[in-house]
Amino acid sequence: PRITDPAAPLSLPSSPWQEPRTASFISRGQRGEDLVPWTLSRPTELRVIGQLQDSFILIESPQGLLILDQHAAQERILYEKLKQGLQQKQIPQQQLLFPLPIELSLAEFLHFQRFATEIAQAGFQVEPFGEKSVIVRGVPAALGKADYARIFLDLLDRLMQFEQKPSPEEILENILTTVACHDAIKANHPLQPSQMEDLLQELLQTEAPHTCPHGRPLFLFLSGARIRTRFLR
Amino acid sequence: PRITDPAAPLSLPSSPWQEPRTASFISRGQRGEDLVPWTLSRPTELRVIGQLQDSFILIESPQGLLILDQHAAQERILYEKLKQGLQQKQIPQQQLLFPLPIELSLAEFLHFQRFATEIAQAGFQVEPFGEKSVIVRGVPAALGKADYARIFLDLLDRLMQFEQKPSPEEILENILTTVACHDAIKANHPLQPSQMEDLLQELLQTEAPHTCPHGRPLFLFLSGARIRTRFLR
Repeated sequence: PRITDPAAPLSLPSSPWQEPRTASFISRGQRGEDLVPWTLSRPTELRVIGQLQDSFILIESPQGLLILDQHAAQERILYEKLKQGLQQKQIPQQQLLFPLPIELSLAEFLHFQRFATEIAQAGFQVEPFGEKSVIVRGVPAALGKADYARIFLDLLDRLMQFEQKPSPEEILENILTTVACHDAIKANHPLQPSQMEDLLQELLQTEAPHTCPHGRPLFLFLSGARIRTRFLR
Repeated sequence: PRITDPAAPLSLPSSPWQEPRTASFISRGQRGEDLVPWTLSRPTELRVIGQLQDSFILIESPQGLLILDQHAAQERILYEKLKQGLQQKQIPQQQLLFPLPIELSLAEFLHFQRFATEIAQAGFQVEPFGEKSVIVRGVPAALGKADYARIFLDLLDRLMQFEQKPSPEEILENILTTVACHDAIKANHPLQPSQMEDLLQELLQTEAPHTCPHGRPLFLFLSGARIRTRFLR
């Protein structure tokens, strides 16, 4: 069914602190490796220690060290914000001061028309413009000051990869994932301690804080016991 | 030969940045584990990130994360200070304001007499006192305010475990190791950022900064590439 009713939410993970979607993350850890994906049992006393290589946030848990992928964490946060707006039919939109014309290939243009409804639902205001061009007049507010043309083209590209017409849920999930990925803090970005703290707290309030929208782990865990073992203590 | 000449140094590791003594540390890492003992090629740009579980210092290297065992690091530092003093026959000694009588078992007393010369060389001023007691009048200054009686008894205990009479080098090494171990910062000790920085810098100036006097690794290394792999990036 098309999503036209706020009462018909996307079929995405919704219970907090649940298992990650792919069980393989867990089985990797069971082979006795040091670094294992962390499944949050509950948010316990976590303390931000600092940043590694401008890309990872090091966090102390009572049991050991957590390494958080800052880029993927922000993807998750954005994704959930967008999803929430979508479910409430209130994706905040920003009108562009200078509407953005984009020339498409014919294939792209046909796909734009095919997915126009869902693209609009996800917060894009895009109109056909001439024979195979479009003009972007509004984008999801969450995008901030991004490269809208590139995001829109990436989105079409992603939707074109479906062989059969995807379900509306699949389309919307792809839109959200594309948008979230584009707008996230990139790796190699220094963060202030307060920014790391905010990112962690915001992430812990999302529905699936242990995986990014693509299903990759957000936290790696290295237990204090394991560190001691490796130190031969 | 007995060590009576400063020109006959202890046969201990002396070239900086050399391989750790036990090759097994290295082979462990080669089995594809995440955490591997770090052999310093040279002290590159290292940055202290913070402390984990009041016991480990997290350090950024250009290639990834280093985890330093603070207790073992200080053992190494003290050990080298003592060794240096010993080689120069200048182990600074502190006289005890209140000389400390210690009652020994007969076996302990015999061992004390057997190793009296080396014990004195290492900075202890201990005299027989009655039938099988001793009185400690001075200790290596590096000991600070330690539990001298316990250190002295540990030392005897350690020396008694040799089946054959050990070489003077072995005796002295055992004394240094016992002393260094006792006086080191314990694990579970919070450190200020400046204290972590000082500890790291002092350690890097020692002769064998990658192993503690017992031969255990001081640094574990977790490469940034490995973290990315584990994040499935």
